[in-house]
Amino acid sequence: MAPVLILMGSQSDWPVMQHAAQMLKDLGVEWRAEVVSAHRTPDLLQTTMQQAEQDDVPVVIAGAGGAAHLPGMLAAFTAIPVLGVPVPGKQLKGLDSLLSIVQMPKGVAVGTLAVGPAGAANAGLLAAQIIGVSDKSVRDRVQRFRAQQREKVMSGAKLELPE
Amino acid sequence: MAPVLILMGSQSDWPVMQHAAQMLKDLGVEWRAEVVSAHRTPDLLQTTMQQAEQDDVPVVIAGAGGAAHLPGMLAAFTAIPVLGVPVPGKQLKGLDSLLSIVQMPKGVAVGTLAVGPAGAANAGLLAAQIIGVSDKSVRDRVQRFRAQQREKVMSGAKLELPE
Amino acid sequence: MAPVLILMGSQSDWPVMQHAAQMLKDLGVEWRAEVVSAHRTPDLLQTTMQQAEQDDVPVVIAGAGGAAHLPGMLAAFTAIPVLGVPVPGKQLKGLDSLLSIVQMPKGVAVGTLAVGPAGAANAGLLAAQIIGVSDKSVRDRVQRFRAQQREKVMSGAKLELPE
Amino acid sequence: MAPVLILMGSQSDWPVMQHAAQMLKDLGVEWRAEVVSAHRTPDLLQTTMQQAEQDDVPVVIAGAGGAAHLPGMLAAFTAIPVLGVPVPGKQLKGLDSLLSIVQMPKGVAVGTLAVGPAGAANAGLLAAQIIGVSDKSVRDRVQRFRAQQREKVMSGAKLELPE
Amino acid sequence: MAPVLILMGSQSDWPVMQHAAQMLKDLGVEWRAEVVSAHRTPDLLQTTMQQAEQDDVPVVIAGAGGAAHLPGMLAAFTAIPVLGVPVPGKQLKGLDSLLSIVQMPKGVAVGTLAVGPAGAANAGLLAAQIIGVSDKSVRDRVQRFRAQQREKVMSGAKLELPE
Amino acid sequence: MAPVLILMGSQSDWPVMQHAAQMLKDLGVEWRAEVVSAHRTPDLLQTTMQQAEQDDVPVVIAGAGGAAHLPGMLAAFTAIPVLGVPVPGKQLKGLDSLLSIVQMPKGVAVGTLAVGPAGAANAGLLAAQIIGVSDKSVRDRVQRFRAQQREKVMSGAKLELPE
Amino acid sequence: MAPVLILMGSQSDWPVMQHAAQMLKDLGVEWRAEVVSAHRTPDLLQTTMQQAEQDDVPVVIAGAGGAAHLPGMLAAFTAIPVLGVPVPGKQLKGLDSLLSIVQMPKGVAVGTLAVGPAGAANAGLLAAQIIGVSDKSVRDRVQRFRAQQREKVMSGAKLELPE
Amino acid sequence: MAPVLILMGSQSDWPVMQHAAQMLKDLGVEWRAEVVSAHRTPDLLQTTMQQAEQDDVPVVIAGAGGAAHLPGMLAAFTAIPVLGVPVPGKQLKGLDSLLSIVQMPKGVAVGTLAVGPAGAANAGLLAAQIIGVSDKSVRDRVQRFRAQQREKVMSGAKLELPE
Repeated sequence: MAPVLILMGSQSDWPVMQHAAQMLKDLGVEWRAEVVSAHRTPDLLQTTMQQAEQDDVPVVIAGAGGAAHLPGMLAAFTAIPVLGVPVPGKQLKGLDSLLSIVQMPKGVAVGTLAVGPAGAANAGLLAAQIIGVSDKSVRDRVQRFRAQQREKVMSGAKLELPE
Repeated sequence: MAPVLILMGSQSDWPVMQHAAQMLKDLGVEWRAEVVSAHRTPDLLQTTMQQAEQDDVPVVIAGAGGAAHLPGMLAAFTAIPVLGVPVPGKQLKGLDSLLSIVQMPKGVAVGTLAVGPAGAANAGLLAAQIIGVSDKSVRDRVQRFRAQQREKVMSGAKLELPE
Repeated sequence: MAPVLILMGSQSDWPVMQHAAQMLKDLGVEWRAEVVSAHRTPDLLQTTMQQAEQDDVPVVIAGAGGAAHLPGMLAAFTAIPVLGVPVPGKQLKGLDSLLSIVQMPKGVAVGTLAVGPAGAANAGLLAAQIIGVSDKSVRDRVQRFRAQQREKVMSGAKLELPE
Repeated sequence: MAPVLILMGSQSDWPVMQHAAQMLKDLGVEWRAEVVSAHRTPDLLQTTMQQAEQDDVPVVIAGAGGAAHLPGMLAAFTAIPVLGVPVPGKQLKGLDSLLSIVQMPKGVAVGTLAVGPAGAANAGLLAAQIIGVSDKSVRDRVQRFRAQQREKVMSGAKLELPE
Repeated sequence: MAPVLILMGSQSDWPVMQHAAQMLKDLGVEWRAEVVSAHRTPDLLQTTMQQAEQDDVPVVIAGAGGAAHLPGMLAAFTAIPVLGVPVPGKQLKGLDSLLSIVQMPKGVAVGTLAVGPAGAANAGLLAAQIIGVSDKSVRDRVQRFRAQQREKVMSGAKLELPE
Repeated sequence: MAPVLILMGSQSDWPVMQHAAQMLKDLGVEWRAEVVSAHRTPDLLQTTMQQAEQDDVPVVIAGAGGAAHLPGMLAAFTAIPVLGVPVPGKQLKGLDSLLSIVQMPKGVAVGTLAVGPAGAANAGLLAAQIIGVSDKSVRDRVQRFRAQQREKVMSGAKLELPE
Repeated sequence: MAPVLILMGSQSDWPVMQHAAQMLKDLGVEWRAEVVSAHRTPDLLQTTMQQAEQDDVPVVIAGAGGAAHLPGMLAAFTAIPVLGVPVPGKQLKGLDSLLSIVQMPKGVAVGTLAVGPAGAANAGLLAAQIIGVSDKSVRDRVQRFRAQQREKVMSGAKLELPE
Repeated sequence: MAPVLILMGSQSDWPVMQHAAQMLKDLGVEWRAEVVSAHRTPDLLQTTMQQAEQDDVPVVIAGAGGAAHLPGMLAAFTAIPVLGVPVPGKQLKGLDSLLSIVQMPKGVAVGTLAVGPAGAANAGLLAAQIIGVSDKSVRDRVQRFRAQQREKVMSGAKLELPE
C-alpha cells in the first residue's frame, strides 16, 4: 500500500498539517506531503489524484484555509477517501475554512476534522483507522495509542490551587 | 463580444441565478447560462474556461450553494473577471456559501455579491458595468437603469398607518 | 464484512439519516440502522461498539442534533472509523450540532459531513469509499455512481428565462 | 455531605477550572478536582458517577473545550445536578464548547455557565447555592459574599479622565 | 418546601415555558408560574425574590427572549439557584437570548439550559435534581424518569427505508 | 441641566467608557461617571435612576460587557433616553454584549452604539446631539466637531507604497 | 417642533417601520414617513437632511435591510440625532443590517434598536424620550405608557398547563 | 485610461489597502489612492465619483472597516465598477465590514473581496482583470502573474517533520 498523501494549499499550512504527518508516523503509517493549490495550480488536481489512484494511495488528507476548496476539489477527482482539515486564518479564525470544507453537496464527500492542529492530528488518526479496516496491524497500533493516551490521563498530576 | 457566461453548480440554482440573466437582458447585454458542477463535473472547469477565453467571453458569473467552490475554481482557470453569487441553502442560509466564495486567498479573485436573488441580479448589473468600461452604449444603459430606479423610489405611494 | 452501522440519537433523526442508508443501498453496500442515545442510553455506547468490533463492522455512521455527542462518544469507544452527521434542529439550524461533532480534541477523530440530508448521503458515500480502499468492487461502484451524476449534470435541460 | 466534584477533560483546563475551586473555597464548601476525559477515558464516566452517587456528592462541575462532551455525558450517568463550563480554545473562542454543552436534548440537563474563568467561578457559586437549598450555613455565606461584592462596587475609586 | 417558581418575561413565553411545568409535574414536584418582566415591571424583581426567599422557594426557573435580562436580574436579587431558559425569537432564533442569559459576569450565576422547549423541560428536570440533593424521594423519581426514557429508546420501531 | 450620567458595570470598563467622557468634554458637555452594577448592586438601579430624574439628567450612557444587562435595566427604570455601549470581553469579543444590549423587547428602548471605544465615543456624541435638540450652543459645537473631522480627513498625508 | 422624520430604504420596509409611527402616534408625537434610498437616491440624502435641519426636525428614525447604509449616511449629513432600525431580510435574518447600522466608526453615531418590529416600535419610543428631554408633556406620556404596560403585565391571565 | 482609483475610509486603512496598490503596480496598472470617508466627508462621495467618471477611471477599489458604507455609497454614485475590501477591526474581525459591503440591495452592486490584505491584493488583481477585458496587454500580464505563482507553488521546499 502506498503512503497516505498529505496535500495542502500552501507551504504556510505545514506548521498545522505536520501534525497529521506526526500522528501517522507515531502510528507506523507511511506518509508523503506535497503542496498543491486548488487556486494556483488547479490543473494539477486531476493529475495528482490520477497518480494517487495509480499508486494505490489509501487515503488523502487535505488542509487549506479561507475559502478552502482543496479538499472538496480533490474529492471530486477521486474515489479515494478524502479527509479535510480547516487551517485557521487571521481574521475569521477558521470558521470560513470549516464551512468551505464540510458543507459539500450530495455526491462528493469530505470527512472533515476540527480547525487547526488538533484536526490535523485527528486526520492522521482517522486515516490510520481507515487503513485499519483491512490492516489488522495498523488497527492494533491505533488501539495501543488509545490505551496510551488513557494512561496519560489517569497518571496526571494532582490538581491544587496555587498558594 | 461574446455573451456573458452564467454558470451554476446545479439546475436547482436557476431560480436564483435567473435574476442575473434577467438583469443582463434588461440592460441589453447578451448572456448564456449553463450548469457546470465543480464537484460533479470537475474536469469540465478547465475546458469551459478555455472555451470562454477563446470565445472572448467578457465576464463569468458563477453561483453555487453550500461549500460553494465553483466561482473560485473557475477563477483559478481564467483571467476573465469572475463574479460569485452565494445561493442560500436550507440550513445555514447562505452564510456557508458566502464565506466559501468571498474568502479567496491572494492570487485568485472572485468579486462576490449578496446572498440570493438580489446578489444574482447585482452580478448581472456589475457584469454590465464591467463591459461598460470599454463599451459606452452599455454604460449608458446602466446609467438609464439607475435613473429609472431613482424615479421609482421618488414616485412611491404615501406611507400611512393602516386604519 | 459486516454491514455499515448507522446509529442515531433519536428515531426522529431517521428522515435525515435514511439518506445514508439509501446511498449505501444504491452503492450495493449493506447497512443496519439503530437508535442509541448518548444521553438516554449512555451505558449502551461501549457495548454497542464492542459488538461492532466483534462483528467486524467496517464503518460507523452516527447522526445527532443539538449538543450532538453521539459520534464523538462512539469514536471514543472504538478504532472503527466513525463518520458524523449533524442533524439540524429548529433554532440553531445545525450549527450547534456541526460544532459539537467536528471540534473533537486531539486523539479521538470523527470525520464530519455537511448538516442535514446531503451530509447523511455523503456519509454513506464516504463509508463506501472507505470500504473501497480494500474492496475493488465497491470502489468500482463508487466510480460508476460518480460517472452517473456527471452524466446527469451534462444532460440537464436548457436554462431559459420564464416568459 | 461529600465535596463538590470538579471534573475536567484535560489537565490544561485547570487554569480555567481552578476558579470554580477557588470560589468554593471562598464560600467554605469542600471540593475535589480530577481529570476524566469523555473521549480518552470514556469507560470511566459511568464508574466516576456511580462512585459520586455512592459518596453522596451534591453537585458535579464539569469543564471542557471544543466539542465539549464531558458535562453532558456525566449528566447522562447520574441524577446529581451537573453544571457545565465552556473552556475557550484558540480558534473558535469557546463558542463551540458553549453550544456543545448547553444545547442538550430533552431528558438530560446541564446547567451551563459563561465561557472561561468567570463561568468557572460562577459554577462554584451556583454549586454553593444548590447546596444552600438545604444547608442554611452555606446559604448565609453566599449572601455574605454577595454583600461583600456589593461593598466593593460601592467603594470604587473615582472615575476621572487621564490628564 | 415551597413550589418551584417559574417566571417569564411575557405571557407569550408560556408555550415554551410550560414544558418546564410539565416536566416538574411529571416528576411530582410542585410548581407555580408567573409573569414578571425585567423591563416592564423592574420594581417587582426584588420583591418577587424577597417573597420567594421568605416562602422557601428551592429553585427559580426564568425564561425570556431577545435581550433576556430576567434570569440574570432575578439571580442578582437572591441566593436561590436560578435556571435560565432562552426563548427563541423570530429573527435571531434565540442566539441573542442564549448569550444574554449565559454570559453572566463573575459573582452572579445563572445555570443556563438549551434554547426553546427542550431547554424549558430540562430546566424542570434540573430543578428536580437540585431538590433531589436533599430529598431522596424526588431523586428517586428522577432516576425512574431516566429509566423510562431509556426504555423508550430501546423499544423503538425498526428503521427501514420507505418503499 | 445636569451633567450626562455615564454608568458602567465595573471599574474595569472605564478604559473603554472614558471615550464617552472625553467626547462630551470635547463638545463642552458636562458629565459624571459612576460604577453601578446590574448584578452586584441591583437595588441601586432604581434609586440611581430616580435620583437622575430628580437631578434632571438629560441622557444616561451605560456600558457593560458579557450578558450586559445594565443599559436595559436602567432604561426600564426611567424615561430619560438611555444609550448603551457594548464593552468587548476576552472570548466572544463583544458580540454577546452587543446582542444583550440591542435586542430589547418592545416597550423599553436602548439606543445602542458600536462595540468598544468607538461606540463609547459615539455615545458621548449622540448624547450631545440629543441635548442639542433643545440647546443650540451644543448643536453648534457638534457641527464644529464635524467640520473639524472633515478637515482632518482632507488634510491627510499622501498615500504611497513603502520603498 | 416639526414631526419626527421616519425614513426607510424601500417601500417594502414599511410593514416593519410603521411600528415606529404607531408608537409615536400612541405617545402623541407627530411623525412623517418617506422613502429615501441610500443606494438608489444617494443625492437626496444631503438635501433631505438639510431640509430636516431647516424644518427643525427633532429626531430622524431610519430603517433599512441588508447592507443597511441609510441610517449611517443620514447621520453623516446632520447633527440631528439619528436612530437606526435593522429590517430583517430572508437569508441572514437581520444580522447583516444590525452590524451595518450599529458598527459606526468614531465621529458619526447611530443609536441602534433591535432587529424588526420591536426595534421599530422602540425607535418611536426613544424618539419620544429624546423629545421629552425638553418637553415635559411628552415625557409624561412616556411615563404613562410605561405605567400602562406595567399594568398589562400584572393583570395577565393565570398560567396553566393545557389539559 | 486613467489610473485605478483606490479609496479608503481612513488613513489607518492604508496598511491593508496598499496591497491593492502593490498588486496593481506588479501588474503594470497605474493607480491613485485617496482617503474619502463615507461618514466624515459624505459630501465628497458624489463629487469624487463625478470626477472619476470625467477622468475615465476604469475601476474603483474601496476599503473600509466596521459599518463599511464607503464601497456601497461610491457604487450608488457611479456606473464605474466598484470593488469592496472589508478592513478587519479589533472586535468583530471584519465580519461586520464584510456583511456591510457584500449584502447590497438589488440595483447597486459591489464586487466584494476577502477580509484583509489578501482581499485588498485580490481587488487589485480583479481590477486588472476588468481592465484586461478590453486591454490585451494587461490581460497578458495577469496571465504571466498566474504562471509565476504556479511556478512558486511547484518549486516549494520539501515538507519534512522537524527532528
